[in-house]
Amino acid sequence: MPSGTKCFDWTVPPEWNIKDAWVKDSSGKKIIDFKENNLHVLGYSEKLHGKMNLEELTKYIYTLPDQPEVIPYLTSYYASRFGFCMSYKQFRKLKEDEYEVCIDADKNPKGFMTAGEAVLPGKSKKEILFSTYICHPSMANNELSGPLVTAYIYNELKKKEDRRFTYRFLFLPETIGAIWYLSVNGNELKKNLHAGYVVTCIGDRGNFTYKRSRIGNSISDRAAEIVLMETERKYTVEDFFPTGSDERQYCSPGFNLPVGSLMRTRYGKYSEYHTSADNRNFISFKKMEESVFKYLEIIKVLETNNLYNNTNPECEPQLGKRGLYPTIGSHKDTTDLVNAMMWVLNLSDGTNDLIKISERSGLKFKIVAEAALKLSEKGLLKITGEG
Amino acid sequence: MPSGTKCFDWTVPPEWNIKDAWVKDSSGKKIIDFKENNLHVLGYSEKLHGKMNLEELTKYIYTLPDQPEVIPYLTSYYASRFGFCMSYKQFRKLKEDEYEVCIDADKNPKGFMTAGEAVLPGKSKKEILFSTYICHPSMANNELSGPLVTAYIYNELKKKEDRRFTYRFLFLPETIGAIWYLSVNGNELKKNLHAGYVVTCIGDRGNFTYKRSRIGNSISDRAAEIVLMETERKYTVEDFFPTGSDERQYCSPGFNLPVGSLMRTRYGKYSEYHTSADNRNFISFKKMEESVFKYLEIIKVLETNNLYNNTNPECEPQLGKRGLYPTIGSHKDTTDLVNAMMWVLNLSDGTNDLIKISERSGLKFKIVAEAALKLSEKGLLKITGEG
Amino acid sequence: MPSGTKCFDWTVPPEWNIKDAWVKDSSGKKIIDFKENNLHVLGYSEKLHGKMNLEELTKYIYTLPDQPEVIPYLTSYYASRFGFCMSYKQFRKLKEDEYEVCIDADKNPKGFMTAGEAVLPGKSKKEILFSTYICHPSMANNELSGPLVTAYIYNELKKKEDRRFTYRFLFLPETIGAIWYLSVNGNELKKNLHAGYVVTCIGDRGNFTYKRSRIGNSISDRAAEIVLMETERKYTVEDFFPTGSDERQYCSPGFNLPVGSLMRTRYGKYSEYHTSADNRNFISFKKMEESVFKYLEIIKVLETNNLYNNTNPECEPQLGKRGLYPTIGSHKDTTDLVNAMMWVLNLSDGTNDLIKISERSGLKFKIVAEAALKLSEKGLLKITGEG
Repeated sequence: MPSGTKCFDWTVPPEWNIKDAWVKDSSGKKIIDFKENNLHVLGYSEKLHGKMNLEELTKYIYTLPDQPEVIPYLTSYYASRFGFCMSYKQFRKLKEDEYEVCIDADKNPKGFMTAGEAVLPGKSKKEILFSTYICHPSMANNELSGPLVTAYIYNELKKKEDRRFTYRFLFLPETIGAIWYLSVNGNELKKNLHAGYVVTCIGDRGNFTYKRSRIGNSISDRAAEIVLMETERKYTVEDFFPTGSDERQYCSPGFNLPVGSLMRTRYGKYSEYHTSADNRNFISFKKMEESVFKYLEIIKVLETNNLYNNTNPECEPQLGKRGLYPTIGSHKDTTDLVNAMMWVLNLSDGTNDLIKISERSGLKFKIVAEAALKLSEKGLLKITGEG
Repeated sequence: MPSGTKCFDWTVPPEWNIKDAWVKDSSGKKIIDFKENNLHVLGYSEKLHGKMNLEELTKYIYTLPDQPEVIPYLTSYYASRFGFCMSYKQFRKLKEDEYEVCIDADKNPKGFMTAGEAVLPGKSKKEILFSTYICHPSMANNELSGPLVTAYIYNELKKKEDRRFTYRFLFLPETIGAIWYLSVNGNELKKNLHAGYVVTCIGDRGNFTYKRSRIGNSISDRAAEIVLMETERKYTVEDFFPTGSDERQYCSPGFNLPVGSLMRTRYGKYSEYHTSADNRNFISFKKMEESVFKYLEIIKVLETNNLYNNTNPECEPQLGKRGLYPTIGSHKDTTDLVNAMMWVLNLSDGTNDLIKISERSGLKFKIVAEAALKLSEKGLLKITGEG
Repeated sequence: MPSGTKCFDWTVPPEWNIKDAWVKDSSGKKIIDFKENNLHVLGYSEKLHGKMNLEELTKYIYTLPDQPEVIPYLTSYYASRFGFCMSYKQFRKLKEDEYEVCIDADKNPKGFMTAGEAVLPGKSKKEILFSTYICHPSMANNELSGPLVTAYIYNELKKKEDRRFTYRFLFLPETIGAIWYLSVNGNELKKNLHAGYVVTCIGDRGNFTYKRSRIGNSISDRAAEIVLMETERKYTVEDFFPTGSDERQYCSPGFNLPVGSLMRTRYGKYSEYHTSADNRNFISFKKMEESVFKYLEIIKVLETNNLYNNTNPECEPQLGKRGLYPTIGSHKDTTDLVNAMMWVLNLSDGTNDLIKISERSGLKFKIVAEAALKLSEKGLLKITGEG
């Protein structure tokens, strides 16, 4: 969408392009080189070319004295600045000299902001959203892991032919991208969104973290949490908070969409975050594969989680004559599956979805879903809605 | 009711009668004898007479290898089978031989299923139900203790002349009996049932266990739980689950009646359950007497638990001039009874029954009920409903 | 108001005045002297003059054997009695003798009951009530500390010119005074009372105790509790109970007003309570000053606690262009104030007041209120009601 586009209280800024940037000492040696690491330039920096002594140069240099080895990631989108970022260790070595500085960048008011969208249609118009961001992909966990994992979820879902829900995948610049998307499609999402997740910080070696939607017990939250509870020994669930990534926009009070975020180590919780140390070594392809599968398990729950009505609600139906109950026995060793059928029949009054039945019975969602399937095949259950 | 009677999804099966059953070895010695223990025959077994070698006989013998000393209790109501049950220890002693086997039983399609019902009328048409079962009374805790304790509750209540509620006692074959009863009288129960309990596993030496109704906080549950809390040091409260006894039918979603179950050691929680070891030694007449009194205490709570309106709701009424408050004092030593009067007056706005007032005040139900009686006598309370 | 005034179920009693009272032994020595300590006379005692031996005198003497050093405080308002109170230690020293006793008191059926009221008007007709009592001020913590602290709250609030709420201060004889006030002004209070507190037991050296209103989560309760949580390390919160002071009347079911009570050591919780040991040494002027400030902090919360609507509810408003957000940065170090602005914007949908936002965010009320003020100044919030 073109620079200058209005979206709610915001305006898409001019498009920034950068070809090169460096600082040379008086011997002509490049002591800062954008081509070596693009974090060396303050994001959205103004164009610059000139000479300056150490004192003046220092004014335009950003470091992290607390983490002296790393280059910080900094941006200045909404105030005009230029600047370089470098490690504090390297900065301390700079001597009095005459430096030549260059930032070969420009801002094009007739440029564009780029976003990606893909949709996999399903039987229902109700949608599951995966939203990830693409504005600083030179950092690995936050953010490249997000688009990677999202792309693999897309690939896996594309193979399935019997998708119940429609799946929407958004690759947007953080904040302004999500705001733009909502300004155009927010009302549609309000109408159709069944569940959604912001995919970020999903490639490191830490345990899973789930950040709840603002609603707090939306189906997004319940599906993610039952999967984590059943499959992970250690994980963290956090209530919604209004800082973070694009869930801030999806969960703003005017939308209040059911959008949570399944992460591994959450932004702000690891020191490499927003520095040059959030690099390829910090993430793991094995862990990202695990993350994809975890999201797929959540999707499986969403696809099978129904509300049912028991078609024989008065007393139990006779399961034995339908081959669903052992014909000999003494109640001594009811199997989990028989147990699950009893629970599904007892609670299927149109108010308890399968997640609720799994929680109340203590039986795994998978076995509850299997029981519901078997009972449905015999006509003992009727779907009354999705959970 | 006659065999063949339809009740919801079920049919009353033909009436089974058995005269004798045995297995003799080639010397004519009875190695299994129904007259010694009726658990030796698979419940609802087909008629049988013939000779078989050990290999064939083994096909029809049921044992519990994990509990080698006991005869299991097994039935096959809804699939045609014949069989014997014996201890694994005895089974291991059987030698190669020619055995003569006999089950002198028959199934009469023109027979009847037998049930018992007794009603003690009260001032109100609202009912308290006690339901117990009578299909395998040769086992002691589960089940003979149930009919015994129920009969004694009946005897005690019969002596009282001022019953507030109507009391209904049902003695039914488990499952099919309750389903039949509900098929005929379910709608009446829906209309009139105030509280109810399934009486089972109530004679052993264990602590009390209360299994809640599906509703979870019905008056049945609240009355049972306040009595246990006030009178027992150790006891267990379990949420409803849809396996178990006839509460499964009473609490099916089409009825969802307020029926819980006060037990001692719950079915499935003791190894003697559904074996020949659940015998007279396993139960205690002293404990059954205690159980009767515990149920009677619950009944007392139900009979006195009212919702009241304070007739002087604006500020406190002056208790002193009615002889209900000490005329000298300093608030230093308010008695529990005065305290209870203050609580009852303060909370009697038509929304808090006496159980709730007892819970909120931390005062025993008995003293709260006494306070309510005293205040009522002075015209300071008016009943607005039962709790 | 005149003696004989009817108020609900009560009548204002005749006015009691006492000039002197004593017991002299046969040598003429005063062994009990009202002028030394007015607790020596049973409150509201009848007039008396005569001679009696030790046995007879003993019938009219009240002591506390468990606390032998102190004179108990006792009254007999609603039954006609006369009597003296003394320490058990002193009582044990009395010898056989002929005593002269005198209580120079009278009850005037044409007298008056005295009460004090003061109002500081605010912008709104909605009121904050401070109610304290004045019937036994010769005891220090319970009760003189109450009128003292209340008077200082009044003095402080009088200095402020921009009071949002109207403040009402009541100095009443306990029980009968509050009942009288409610009989005359109860319906007005029902309409206008926003929050209220009974001020008592507020001068000793103990930690704070807050007793909730009967409502339990009224704005009175929520404001007091957030202040205690944020400023005190050790304090106690108690649910409402219907004994105690005048909250009994304000919280009777016919009024159910939002009236709690911030105390230090609560009546009944210290042994000096209602004895001569609750004297000037038991209280501290420094602690009473602290108590005044604590009440003023609660008032500050009440005055600033609003419900807001975010005027830009769809996505975040752009705080940067309004100077409310750092223009450079990386989300690494969001300040509490920026954080608080994000929380206020996100939760301001007309259902969450600032106390709720403070609780949910974990940020102090003060900073949440500051954030709300800054956002309001920029037009980003609109008040929809008081919390």
